[in-house]
Amino acid sequence: MPEKRYLLTPGPTPVPPEVLSALAQPVVHHRGPDFKRAYAECLERLQTVTRTEHDVLLFSTSGTGAFESAVANLTSPRDRVVVVSAGYFGERWIEMTKAFGADVLELRYEWGETPEPDDLRTLLAAAGGASVVYLTHSETSTGVVADVESLAALAKDAGAIVVVDAVSSLGAVPLETDEWGIDVTVAGSQKALMTPPGLGFASASPAAFAAAEHATTPRFVFDWERTRAGQEKLDAPVTLAVPLVLALNVALGMILEEGLEATFDRHVRLGRACRAGVKAMGLELFSPDEDRASVVTAIRVPDGVDADELLLNLRDRHGIQLIGGQGALKGKIFRIGHIGWFDLFDITTALAGVELALLEAGADVERGVAVSAALEAHAAPVRA
Amino acid sequence: MPEKRYLLTPGPTPVPPEVLSALAQPVVHHRGPDFKRAYAECLERLQTVTRTEHDVLLFSTSGTGAFESAVANLTSPRDRVVVVSAGYFGERWIEMTKAFGADVLELRYEWGETPEPDDLRTLLAAAGGASVVYLTHSETSTGVVADVESLAALAKDAGAIVVVDAVSSLGAVPLETDEWGIDVTVAGSQKALMTPPGLGFASASPAAFAAAEHATTPRFVFDWERTRAGQEKLDAPVTLAVPLVLALNVALGMILEEGLEATFDRHVRLGRACRAGVKAMGLELFSPDEDRASVVTAIRVPDGVDADELLLNLRDRHGIQLIGGQGALKGKIFRIGHIGWFDLFDITTALAGVELALLEAGADVERGVAVSAALEAHAAPVRA
Repeated sequence: MPEKRYLLTPGPTPVPPEVLSALAQPVVHHRGPDFKRAYAECLERLQTVTRTEHDVLLFSTSGTGAFESAVANLTSPRDRVVVVSAGYFGERWIEMTKAFGADVLELRYEWGETPEPDDLRTLLAAAGGASVVYLTHSETSTGVVADVESLAALAKDAGAIVVVDAVSSLGAVPLETDEWGIDVTVAGSQKALMTPPGLGFASASPAAFAAAEHATTPRFVFDWERTRAGQEKLDAPVTLAVPLVLALNVALGMILEEGLEATFDRHVRLGRACRAGVKAMGLELFSPDEDRASVVTAIRVPDGVDADELLLNLRDRHGIQLIGGQGALKGKIFRIGHIGWFDLFDITTALAGVELALLEAGADVERGVAVSAALEAHAAPVRA
Repeated sequence: MPEKRYLLTPGPTPVPPEVLSALAQPVVHHRGPDFKRAYAECLERLQTVTRTEHDVLLFSTSGTGAFESAVANLTSPRDRVVVVSAGYFGERWIEMTKAFGADVLELRYEWGETPEPDDLRTLLAAAGGASVVYLTHSETSTGVVADVESLAALAKDAGAIVVVDAVSSLGAVPLETDEWGIDVTVAGSQKALMTPPGLGFASASPAAFAAAEHATTPRFVFDWERTRAGQEKLDAPVTLAVPLVLALNVALGMILEEGLEATFDRHVRLGRACRAGVKAMGLELFSPDEDRASVVTAIRVPDGVDADELLLNLRDRHGIQLIGGQGALKGKIFRIGHIGWFDLFDITTALAGVELALLEAGADVERGVAVSAALEAHAAPVRA
């Protein structure tokens, strides 16, 4: 019998069969009515999920590409910007803003720490403001979900344009783009939105569009104004990845049918179940033990266990794809993703697999308790 | 019965069921062995199809995005470059190179004209050279396929880096990247390569990489060196559109199984069949009546016929998607694409549909001769 495969990573994530089917439909022309109907619906649904009344600009690119649009359209060389970084992706945004010639003030934390609003306040006060503040909502590399509501409010007060990397959080944990004063929310298709990678998007407030008018950094496919003008006529300036747009539209429809609040609650329960199981087994969490951190559970590799071998064994012998640490965390942690098309039994599969592989690795884990701890945590009401 | 649909445009093009099936496979992780195997194979096959021994850099983007990588990595503000333009896409490359601050010398032709190597020679001599010459191989908007072999040789002699937009020609008509001294060949997935839109690629010679080291234009996801370094380890710097890469790999395998020469010959016969049918009907070709122009057949709209109505009738009543003129050619021509997964009966379908719709529009066309003219032209040997 061919091996069954379990993709339990925080991106790419599993894609529902309805969405896969949409990918496999005969290709339609990107300027024909079938596509335009879905394109319009997809753009509207993206606004709903992003919780914004402003345009969400859709690009055939990765989440990183969509983020790059928020650098290319908002900064000119030597502009002073702030990047808050507490992990791999925060570091990427520092590298990117520097590559674009910005004067980058780095608010840096150890990987795994949670950014403190007070630190941002102090930095902005000392610097006398910044033109843009770049924040990461869910730092996928550590499992930390930052308090972007507070961070965005501070940045806004200081007169900055606020950009949030919500690549792995959008559709998984609450994010109120307009209500929290976020000018730009960046995300991608391949995380909680249950679609394969290949689409990235950035919402943009009127203030963000106004700032883009003055940014001198050259850009073409990521140019917001060109993209906005195309979207207005449902005629994208470059050929979009047609099947991915159709698939994303199906996935967004499924999410909105479940309801955003119900989706968030489901993620809270999945996160609790995962953490409860991990702790019951006697493992140490690296990611915070809190409901907000329901994107990915990061776990310290037990002493004496080789992380690479553990993950290869899980993947190649047991068909379970988890993921290790990135950058400085390589070898120190492993991660179970649970955003998007996940249910309780994906969590119990992950836990059972981890228990089995750790036993095979000779680690000292508590046997036979993880799954029932997960079931129990999952059954508890989300709100007391 | 649900209407059958015929996508007979020069991009997106029809996608074979084997390729659609690859899109619909459960998503695999982009750093896992299944993906890496296909990624490596896909990169190799792209080299084979591009006829280059150098790296082909693969991006999740449109053909325009891949072209942008050849602007961002090769030009710094105020660099003198030449763009040869004879249609919509040539104009796009002028707009793009200007957006990136280059000092752009435009070698401009009327849309539908074929660029003359002598004109480029004269321009380059008068200008005392240029750092980059940007050429379009197949100008999809007009049906003209330029003699890039001669144009590239002249540009090379003048010491320029030569970039060729081969978006709609790669895999349809011969293009010898290395042999013709082309430094950068840019293409996309959604044309002759029989894959949906969403992937773009650029081959880069050592001279192109060397030039990229000195280009000061900021770039991140389109950065060649970052991409090359990632590809070397089969670990793309950003998450690729996994299903599209798997699909492209299947499509490239099919093309190489047919054989590149056989593929080119098939396109020659399809082009001849289409032009023969069009002429037999009494219509006037806009695109050249020559074997090289086997990407798309552009046809003048007969007097008294409204192009938009003709195309809407074909699409909405008869299920046949052709495409009109772009820019200045809007309303004046319509186009039948025949690159990629096309055979003789796609051509006869297009011709039968055009005959029917023109009769419905009250045009004076020769009835009942187009299809047999196409069959006859298709049956003739490619080489005398």
